[in-house]
Amino acid sequence: MSRVEIGLNDIFCPESIAVVGASSDEQKERSGWTGTLLNSGFKGKLYPVNPKGGKILGLQCYPSLAAIEDRIDFAILNLSPAFVPKALEDCAAKKVKVVHIFSAGFAETGTDQGKKLQAEIRAIIDRTGIRTIGPNCMGVHSVEGGISFANLPRKEGPSALVSQTGAGAARTILYGSRRGIYFGKAISYGNAVDLDSPDLVEMFAHDSKTKYIALYIEGVKNGYALFRAAKKCLANGKALIILKVGSTEAARQAVTSHTGALAGSEQAWEAFFAQTGAIRVSTLEQMVEQLVALQFISRVRGRRIGLIGRGGGPGVIATELCEKANLRVPPFSGALRAQLEKITTASAGSMIRNPVEVGVGRVGAQQGYVDAFKMIAQSEEVDLILTHLNPEAFIIYGGAPEWLNDSISALLGVFKSLPKPVALVLPPGETVESKDIVERAWDRCLDEGLAVFRSYESAASAISKLADYSEFLERV
Amino acid sequence: MSRVEIGLNDIFCPESIAVVGASSDEQKERSGWTGTLLNSGFKGKLYPVNPKGGKILGLQCYPSLAAIEDRIDFAILNLSPAFVPKALEDCAAKKVKVVHIFSAGFAETGTDQGKKLQAEIRAIIDRTGIRTIGPNCMGVHSVEGGISFANLPRKEGPSALVSQTGAGAARTILYGSRRGIYFGKAISYGNAVDLDSPDLVEMFAHDSKTKYIALYIEGVKNGYALFRAAKKCLANGKALIILKVGSTEAARQAVTSHTGALAGSEQAWEAFFAQTGAIRVSTLEQMVEQLVALQFISRVRGRRIGLIGRGGGPGVIATELCEKANLRVPPFSGALRAQLEKITTASAGSMIRNPVEVGVGRVGAQQGYVDAFKMIAQSEEVDLILTHLNPEAFIIYGGAPEWLNDSISALLGVFKSLPKPVALVLPPGETVESKDIVERAWDRCLDEGLAVFRSYESAASAISKLADYSEFLERV
Repeated sequence: MSRVEIGLNDIFCPESIAVVGASSDEQKERSGWTGTLLNSGFKGKLYPVNPKGGKILGLQCYPSLAAIEDRIDFAILNLSPAFVPKALEDCAAKKVKVVHIFSAGFAETGTDQGKKLQAEIRAIIDRTGIRTIGPNCMGVHSVEGGISFANLPRKEGPSALVSQTGAGAARTILYGSRRGIYFGKAISYGNAVDLDSPDLVEMFAHDSKTKYIALYIEGVKNGYALFRAAKKCLANGKALIILKVGSTEAARQAVTSHTGALAGSEQAWEAFFAQTGAIRVSTLEQMVEQLVALQFISRVRGRRIGLIGRGGGPGVIATELCEKANLRVPPFSGALRAQLEKITTASAGSMIRNPVEVGVGRVGAQQGYVDAFKMIAQSEEVDLILTHLNPEAFIIYGGAPEWLNDSISALLGVFKSLPKPVALVLPPGETVESKDIVERAWDRCLDEGLAVFRSYESAASAISKLADYSEFLERV
Repeated sequence: MSRVEIGLNDIFCPESIAVVGASSDEQKERSGWTGTLLNSGFKGKLYPVNPKGGKILGLQCYPSLAAIEDRIDFAILNLSPAFVPKALEDCAAKKVKVVHIFSAGFAETGTDQGKKLQAEIRAIIDRTGIRTIGPNCMGVHSVEGGISFANLPRKEGPSALVSQTGAGAARTILYGSRRGIYFGKAISYGNAVDLDSPDLVEMFAHDSKTKYIALYIEGVKNGYALFRAAKKCLANGKALIILKVGSTEAARQAVTSHTGALAGSEQAWEAFFAQTGAIRVSTLEQMVEQLVALQFISRVRGRRIGLIGRGGGPGVIATELCEKANLRVPPFSGALRAQLEKITTASAGSMIRNPVEVGVGRVGAQQGYVDAFKMIAQSEEVDLILTHLNPEAFIIYGGAPEWLNDSISALLGVFKSLPKPVALVLPPGETVESKDIVERAWDRCLDEGLAVFRSYESAASAISKLADYSEFLERV
């Protein structure tokens, strides 16, 4: 039978959810799915199911799915794997639209028993057309739907996350939340016996709320379907960022024992990226940092970086990291240098060649800092200005929080009016005095829409990939 | 005239210091050198020098160096560059052993005037034999000597820092202090008109308190002297870590405008590293992380990593990052897997092939976690165990700090008794709840001597370079 047609709302905004395999021990179920859904603010109808019946966390508990009179939109199966096929049959009989098989113990174990159980599930899906997420996964995180698999930040944002791994999804959501990146919808889909990355990416490609789609993938059964979904993202103006693991032999083997997936050939993946313009990253953190670049910088017209900041050594290191990341740090023309010379004193140890060290000194940012931004941005010599402030500086210069606060104010006061994009590198404070001051500075920048990175490497990598992506969009 | 012979004590433990160019404005001098030295706990005799005389910060201020009756071991020149040559002559006349020229505005400006002034200084040094640090640098940080150029952590440790850049030195000292790495002695030496990296490295090569020498270098006048100093480190059992910038064209140009140095050919530097066993890093942060590997792990016998941790996705990503960093994550033998199978249930979604996901679950670390360490460490199948704990896990599992605390306790309880080295990857907490808990966990590990890294990349990079270094030591 053909699969039931579903859309994002069926996955992320069901009106009724059954928790099949809710514990009869209320204390236990508080941290189980019933408690988790209550905590995450689910506003629809919630039906715990346990043969013992009774009440759980103030809710009527049903002895079986069939015993529930209402319609069930979504079911979560939290059962020993051997009981999953029967429960899935019950869901099909009840006409549940989407089933999240939370249980693990299927093909990923590599055992005959696990593989056989997964084949049974697959046969039920093929026969009944019921749609399933998993098995072996955390399922849905949906701000609008009031659903989450954990106590995670809940704020709408233009990014969606499709992740084969559950722990990785949680990490990405948390890591993003401190960098201005919020996932209104996220899904961990595990072994992907039915719903797989192509289905999910395709749905997000048509979602008006989604501008960026982040995908963590270990393997995919139908590579061509993912290719088509990626092309759809491109056609619809959605950026697709992919962390594809399994490019080394041991990682390929680890993938198989994690979700039972086949990692696929590295060559095929390279062709995939070259043709779809999808942005390839290597870690979950890079995935988030790429979203920062997309959301806060959007596009760059080229690879020429103007570096402004405090500290000659850091400026030199930043130059080298930019160049190693395939960006350029061109020496400024004589005309631009002559302009910059007017706002600094060459005798003060400042550099004006690019990198530029000007206008941030012992007392914090001075007018020269702002003027340098204007001069460099108005020249045709760079495509983006990357500025760096070191939290150490205000400790070196006597420990006044004003040092950083004033510099950030100067930066925020000027960056929006410039004809070139700007990004800031501001590493975490490492001391008791500097930690909170730096965190507040990050928040101020993010609130104003300024891209902040915590290291030169992460900034250089994200900006370089943004340049690749911008070039790809020019070509297609 | 030949240079005056000096040793580390002359630089780092002078008994008397003159601050030439102390401000007569007491408020200003509070954050100037006189105030900075008082704050950093200098216990010797301190002599501010200013033509106006009077008193500064409770100290007698002298109108000139010559007016001081006592011997002066060390002088700091904080003057406009044009006044530096005359002051240096005065220092030579007074038989000051070491002069730190803090002032900038010399060859690094690229101006004729700056180059001429630097040549004048050089001529005075050549004629009088006086020893100088700088110009254009922050100078000395010495815990024993009670000297620092900023409000930096003061704790003795086996690491010494030789840095051409001042801002970089401060960052490295601060970054290290949160990772168990303390620099008893550090020096920023700027344009190196006299004392250069070979002199400083050579001195530390003979220092009984120093086991590790970290060097940030933009260029060196006498490459062969540095080669000999590096060989001396090798002969004396001191590890040398070098961040050599200027390997790309723009970085080379930036170097010249920062400290006036010539970066040298990349090829020559490659030969240097191959022959001295010095460990090459790309950022100041990597420099510190390499010190973590050296200080807490010391040596590894090979490149085979056993990965234990929570989260299948993170395990797969860690595998890939290790392999890309030239480490190996070998699949375990059937015999070892059979052992591991006994302490986990394959149906629980755990992986036992390497990476291993076992014994850390919803309630924190269980006996299985400890047992897995023992089994893997006792096998001959790995050279180091890298374990990873994600701060997100305890948020996912209900937010109890015990989750992490128990896991750390389990780890600290077992790691010392194992026949293989162990390292932990524990990323910073990104939420209000998790941040402090994670920081306390880091501190517990460092106190017990366990290497902690904050990302897989940094761990993989540092361990791989440690393996290179260990192999080099086997060969020589």
